[in-house]
Amino acid sequence: MTSANRPLLLSNVRLADAHHGHDRQLVSVSVVGARIEAIGPNVAAPPDAIVEDGGGALLLPGFVEGHTHLDKTLWGRDWYVNEVGPNLTDRIANEREFRKSTGYDAGEQSLALSRAFLAAGTTRLRTHVDVDTDAGLRYLEGVLDTRDTLADVLDMQIVAFPQSGMLIRPGTDELLGNALAAGADVLGALDPALIDGDPVGSLDATFALAERYGKPIDIHLHEPGEIGAFTLKLLLDRVEALGMQGRVVVSHAFCLGALPEPTALLERVARLRVALLTSAPPSRPVPPLKRCRELGITILGGNDGIRDTWTPYGVPDMLERAMLIGMRYDLRRDDDLAVAFDCVSAAAASGCGFADYGLQPGARADLVLVDAQTVAHAVVARPARKLVMANGRIVARDGVLTNGV
Amino acid sequence: MTSANRPLLLSNVRLADAHHGHDRQLVSVSVVGARIEAIGPNVAAPPDAIVEDGGGALLLPGFVEGHTHLDKTLWGRDWYVNEVGPNLTDRIANEREFRKSTGYDAGEQSLALSRAFLAAGTTRLRTHVDVDTDAGLRYLEGVLDTRDTLADVLDMQIVAFPQSGMLIRPGTDELLGNALAAGADVLGALDPALIDGDPVGSLDATFALAERYGKPIDIHLHEPGEIGAFTLKLLLDRVEALGMQGRVVVSHAFCLGALPEPTALLERVARLRVALLTSAPPSRPVPPLKRCRELGITILGGNDGIRDTWTPYGVPDMLERAMLIGMRYDLRRDDDLAVAFDCVSAAAASGCGFADYGLQPGARADLVLVDAQTVAHAVVARPARKLVMANGRIVARDGVLTNGV
Ligand SMILES: [Zn+2]
Ligand SMILES: [Zn+2]
Repeated sequence: MTSANRPLLLSNVRLADAHHGHDRQLVSVSVVGARIEAIGPNVAAPPDAIVEDGGGALLLPGFVEGHTHLDKTLWGRDWYVNEVGPNLTDRIANEREFRKSTGYDAGEQSLALSRAFLAAGTTRLRTHVDVDTDAGLRYLEGVLDTRDTLADVLDMQIVAFPQSGMLIRPGTDELLGNALAAGADVLGALDPALIDGDPVGSLDATFALAERYGKPIDIHLHEPGEIGAFTLKLLLDRVEALGMQGRVVVSHAFCLGALPEPTALLERVARLRVALLTSAPPSRPVPPLKRCRELGITILGGNDGIRDTWTPYGVPDMLERAMLIGMRYDLRRDDDLAVAFDCVSAAAASGCGFADYGLQPGARADLVLVDAQTVAHAVVARPARKLVMANGRIVARDGVLTNGV
Repeated sequence: MTSANRPLLLSNVRLADAHHGHDRQLVSVSVVGARIEAIGPNVAAPPDAIVEDGGGALLLPGFVEGHTHLDKTLWGRDWYVNEVGPNLTDRIANEREFRKSTGYDAGEQSLALSRAFLAAGTTRLRTHVDVDTDAGLRYLEGVLDTRDTLADVLDMQIVAFPQSGMLIRPGTDELLGNALAAGADVLGALDPALIDGDPVGSLDATFALAERYGKPIDIHLHEPGEIGAFTLKLLLDRVEALGMQGRVVVSHAFCLGALPEPTALLERVARLRVALLTSAPPSRPVPPLKRCRELGITILGGNDGIRDTWTPYGVPDMLERAMLIGMRYDLRRDDDLAVAFDCVSAAAASGCGFADYGLQPGARADLVLVDAQTVAHAVVARPARKLVMANGRIVARDGVLTNGV
């Protein structure tokens, strides 16, 4: 795989406009050396360019998956009959046993799901990867292989994630450090009070590790209501004390959807530039999307696990995730649905720190074409991806990866 | 269109089994005169039968849509840019104005959506149809035309629905009576307290009309929490007093998801054989699915409106609705996902009163084939419909209607 592409002119495409679906102007995009060179109605083909006719389709930026678990998925395998108990600890124990006993191959599985993401238009992706004292760095190694394989087309961030807990499984913190040294970009964490049993001790250990390796943090915080708020405040104290502003994502943050008056806490989240990630689960409280955005909080979307031993749900399609976000927040107006799309595009790139994102000159050429009249239409209809370009290269047509990817 | 089909043997298909996805026995289904004649491993072809090879696909009963609005949909039309205000009354007024000013054709639109339902495996469908003093019976006439056109393949129930309110728009009750006389099967109603402003008066008028025309009732009850419970109790009083047991559906019933202790009310719902319909909205409280089923309440699923001026969401695919029901109730186990499927199949047929439903001999031959290993797999993956049979006739292959439908 190589990024040495010929220049390309993508002609005859339409830009999104939340308010005026019809009669939008046709534009062209020139792509040189994996970057957008120009975009507009009168863009000329670069010398020696391939010309690709967009057929009047809607042009979207490549999608961003803010939170998934590539190392857990059973995508493409035989159906897994789920008979797992209802508690978080049941699911953790079941999965650890399942992967150990079946010789689960995180390399093969993460590659299958990553390719499906790419075919559906996702060009940047943050995945958590389990690190525990049973498996060590085995899953990380598999996902690192996948990242290498797809390096030229899929921009992947890896979070070293203590799925089985950190303090409660001695040796995990050292493994997390090894994972960061081996190539993980972000330090993960999990429910410092309700899993680790020691919110202060767990957060202190996490921030110390992040500081030692100079890495940002992305924490799974499922803790509900008041206990979640308690943990979140402890976390914000450490963000402030250690200068980690803009370098922390709190995933799920169900507590922010269940407090009677979250404004003071949200204002502090905004001030410390802590981003929030939601998969918009219909059965759990969720952070208040519009209030967060009004306060300047970056709130991004992600699938979380996709078809694994935890959950049968999920598809590697960020338009479907945007639809589910829209449904969860009862977004019906076109301008509101554009917000749902923002959660899986620009806001997600911003929250994860993916650079050079967007449809402007100089951005990495990550483009998606769909037959839809507006962004809102694309979100609810989730049409086939006519064309996906990643890092300046056409990687999929009509939902199928092109030769060589 | 005719139901005089040649007998058919559908061979080489698999029956669903929530627990054991693999190595299930292959069966055949013989269909004679629009009915299932036999189903099992050693079924012989009836004389003069066409033999259709199911290719080992999963056999499901035709799906049942328990609640939609065929007369509102914009399915297949240009994208409607939604700039509507947030209140129920905004949406009602906006739609009334939109349909009046655009010459909306309920016949054409309901036919387009019905055909899409059929292609995706829905063979029985209950639709509400607006009746109001602006439009009179115009929308009903359009939907009646669609019912006639598809009579041989789609079993449709029509609810005469006072979308703009009944008591608050004098003359509506008489129009509802006319609608029932003209072919509507069920009397609809809407929020007796919060829209009509008079829960006792509104319910009395509804039950009187139902009694006069000898029709069952299906009421939209969006009223939340305590006011919804108040209205629901008044409704149950009337079910009991007038002997309407087994003849009333309460759609939405958000109140039952928001009461601290709903058990006594649910027990009364069960005793009076009142069925509950949910679209499982992620942003609203919903009746407790498992508790309802434990108490013997029939709880069924429906899309509600699909891509109309109210909501951009929805597709005419009951597997997707089952998935959304599963997500709303956090159903992850295979046996729980079979419950989500039940809501759009057997339970929906039972709640609406569609006769001769199922996969047993004597049932109407409404069959769907999908490439899936289990029901749970079909629900989350929503695979293309390989084949749809309605009333003994093959009506769609690979998601596309066959010639003549
Ligand atoms: Zn996660
Ligand atoms: Zn409705």
